[in-house]
Amino acid sequence: MGKVVTSASTSLDGFVAFPNDDPGPLFDWYGAGDVEVVNAGDLPPFHLTQTSADYWREWTSRLGCLVVGRHLFDITDGWKGQHPLGVPFVVLTHEAPTDWAHAHTGNAHFVTDGIEAAVAKAQQIAGDKTIGVAAGTVAGQALAAGLVDEVAIDLVPVVLGDGHAYFAGIDPSEVRLGDPTVVIPSARVTHMVFPVQR
Amino acid sequence: MGKVVTSASTSLDGFVAFPNDDPGPLFDWYGAGDVEVVNAGDLPPFHLTQTSADYWREWTSRLGCLVVGRHLFDITDGWKGQHPLGVPFVVLTHEAPTDWAHAHTGNAHFVTDGIEAAVAKAQQIAGDKTIGVAAGTVAGQALAAGLVDEVAIDLVPVVLGDGHAYFAGIDPSEVRLGDPTVVIPSARVTHMVFPVQR
Repeated sequence: MGKVVTSASTSLDGFVAFPNDDPGPLFDWYGAGDVEVVNAGDLPPFHLTQTSADYWREWTSRLGCLVVGRHLFDITDGWKGQHPLGVPFVVLTHEAPTDWAHAHTGNAHFVTDGIEAAVAKAQQIAGDKTIGVAAGTVAGQALAAGLVDEVAIDLVPVVLGDGHAYFAGIDPSEVRLGDPTVVIPSARVTHMVFPVQR
Repeated sequence: MGKVVTSASTSLDGFVAFPNDDPGPLFDWYGAGDVEVVNAGDLPPFHLTQTSADYWREWTSRLGCLVVGRHLFDITDGWKGQHPLGVPFVVLTHEAPTDWAHAHTGNAHFVTDGIEAAVAKAQQIAGDKTIGVAAGTVAGQALAAGLVDEVAIDLVPVVLGDGHAYFAGIDPSEVRLGDPTVVIPSARVTHMVFPVQR
């Protein structure tokens, strides 16, 4: 089975968005270079440095499926069924929507019986490819359940002060990370990957 | 005048100590290697990796004076007048102690009229050497006052969940940092230095 990796752009104080869900300056690095990266969905292309583009392409080429929470699904309208990364996604929710306009794309899968089931479903879809887990409550639940292999942090040199934490709703002592296996400084971001210590 | 640099071991969620002042796992890197580093005061030596020791010695060789807050002074008893880094220190306080047992060392200087005066006093002492500013309220005040040139973060792969923030008591939007000029992965720490954007 593929690795399970949480991933998010993160401030120096550990937030992945302001309280109102705005990522603010955390996404500045998506416009910090001149290498065009095309989205699979209907978002416009973005422009990375060569360093970030190389990292991004390596990461996205390995991805087989994402696991996201219901809140992210709702605020993006499920990316209208086409995630920018071009992969299917599993939505962990208490109740699957019955009238979602983009259900016909077949790219969204709803799981209602917990994080283990959501990750298992994503692994079934992804085969040997990597499972990407969204930061926030879902990442917290996955980490607490011992399901996460790596924590990818795109570290942005800003402070948000308040907002949505990368790992939400868990005992911080659950977060036992090893030294980073990847440290790639770029423009407006340093790409880092930490293995989870079990 | 020398550069003004804030510095602290920092968790992935931006804390420099637990609420009870315990740094917890943030100081694990002080014992993560076999290169002995001797303290100037009466603390025992610590043991760094070669990588961290090289970084540490370069940093401490440039230091001319520290600026610390009254809380840190109180909980350490002013390092009995001998800071581990072997440099004099300026204590920003509302009122200087009149009966401190270690005043005779002459290494502690008390400033009661604000952060600008404290940094100015430290610069007078340090000459061309670097001023180190402790994280927390003092770092926040210095940054908000436009006095800080660089933010040094010894980034530790742990999450504290709560505690003393690196920059305390200021509007986070005051923290405008450039891309890191130093990124040195080591054991239980990644040494990073961010220039302040003015």
